[in-house]
Amino acid sequence: MKDRTNAPIGIFDSGIGGLTVAKAVMEELPHEDIIYFGDTARVPYGIKSEKTIQLYARQITKFLLEKEVKMVLIACNTVSASALQSVVDLVNGLPVLDVITAGTEAALTDSSRKVGVIGTLATIGSHAYEKALKAKNADLDVVSRACPLLVPLAEEGWIDNEVAQRTLRIYLSPFNQQKPDTLILGCTHYPLFKDAIRKEMQSSEIRIIDSALSIAQSTRKTLDRHNLRNPQSDQGSFQCYVSDKPQRFQQLAERFLGRNIPDVHIVSLS
Amino acid sequence: MKDRTNAPIGIFDSGIGGLTVAKAVMEELPHEDIIYFGDTARVPYGIKSEKTIQLYARQITKFLLEKEVKMVLIACNTVSASALQSVVDLVNGLPVLDVITAGTEAALTDSSRKVGVIGTLATIGSHAYEKALKAKNADLDVVSRACPLLVPLAEEGWIDNEVAQRTLRIYLSPFNQQKPDTLILGCTHYPLFKDAIRKEMQSSEIRIIDSALSIAQSTRKTLDRHNLRNPQSDQGSFQCYVSDKPQRFQQLAERFLGRNIPDVHIVSLS
Repeated sequence: MKDRTNAPIGIFDSGIGGLTVAKAVMEELPHEDIIYFGDTARVPYGIKSEKTIQLYARQITKFLLEKEVKMVLIACNTVSASALQSVVDLVNGLPVLDVITAGTEAALTDSSRKVGVIGTLATIGSHAYEKALKAKNADLDVVSRACPLLVPLAEEGWIDNEVAQRTLRIYLSPFNQQKPDTLILGCTHYPLFKDAIRKEMQSSEIRIIDSALSIAQSTRKTLDRHNLRNPQSDQGSFQCYVSDKPQRFQQLAERFLGRNIPDVHIVSLS
Repeated sequence: MKDRTNAPIGIFDSGIGGLTVAKAVMEELPHEDIIYFGDTARVPYGIKSEKTIQLYARQITKFLLEKEVKMVLIACNTVSASALQSVVDLVNGLPVLDVITAGTEAALTDSSRKVGVIGTLATIGSHAYEKALKAKNADLDVVSRACPLLVPLAEEGWIDNEVAQRTLRIYLSPFNQQKPDTLILGCTHYPLFKDAIRKEMQSSEIRIIDSALSIAQSTRKTLDRHNLRNPQSDQGSFQCYVSDKPQRFQQLAERFLGRNIPDVHIVSLS
């Protein structure tokens, strides 16, 4: 098998949210090259059927394989919930990580008794986190809530204004009664609200799990386990591909990455 | 030419918002049969390229023609702005109405001096209302603002809570300085906020143009002009087609229509 250490890491999402994962990977693994695909022509996935999501996931995986990635990160909760196996089936044994598995593993500690999960309508409706958490600890109590306004708020840039804070208060108030010890941010947009979320949680003890950080840490461990770390000493490159409207992506990307993306390429998948 | 009076009216939108148009048409023309198509598999259109929107609009128009509609209502601002001609080119002279033309005509009166427009990012970015208004009155002052959070708020059912009211306050505050005499609701979701919008506007004189009502009135006039009114005395039928996930559509439809939809059919277009 040829040396793949110099190959890029492939990351994909239905749109822009997965950039929080790309950012966390850049910080955790600064010498890795990254190829990001955001399916901006077909976002959002959350309202689509499982069959459609699996088709899209296969198309994107094929695109990343053409780019000769050494591993695939599914930075989209909807794909993680509905199409992980479709990706695994295509990649010929390359490592595949997904945000749900990474977030679940980070959430579970010896002391976890009750875990809260927030996510989009699709993610919460799929019960994907609940199933993944209970598969590891059947006694765990899981409480969840869909927060459909957080993605549009993040994309509007309203991260900590009064509207965001009041929206979070409505969404999070059940958790202040239910008192989970851990709260999983089950959507790649939500790390942008981490400070605002902490403000709304009455218990300062609660652990907040940012699945972007979790998957970045799992990525480092996986690369080490497979001896796949990029040996270059330069900063890794970052290439971005989208399926439609690169301009809007570029505007929003700055908010997510905290830096500009010089080139966003447009590709059409089928 | 065969008698088309008994044929249904075709109404389409990228998703669910166009149901405000369907509702207004049902109230204005209770004896007309209606066929509604919502492209729920590919919503939202606003983030897509013009070429893609034109392709989708042609596919939907062909579907409505197969259903032998007698006229076509474009209940989607994005399609009205980007693909009206694509629809007109396909329909062999059947009447085609669109929400932008209808809203613009309703907004213009002898006394109009300054018109405000609110809509999605795509609609406002296209300057479609501004162009349509200025084509009829070059001296008109037009001020506009994108309100991207209103669609997700409507779909969450937060029509008049504190979050909705504070969001509207932020979006509408420039109009309280600019003082337009008329405000066009340039998105088919926005009629749901009509009361809340009126509360935020300091001038009680301002005319609020609901393009769903406007297009329903234009529909009545157009049918009369072409002698196309359905002669039946029964209440018209309502058939709904969507391209994905009929369940979610059905849930939300109740909020938009104020009544249940018994059958939602799923069709795939290409």
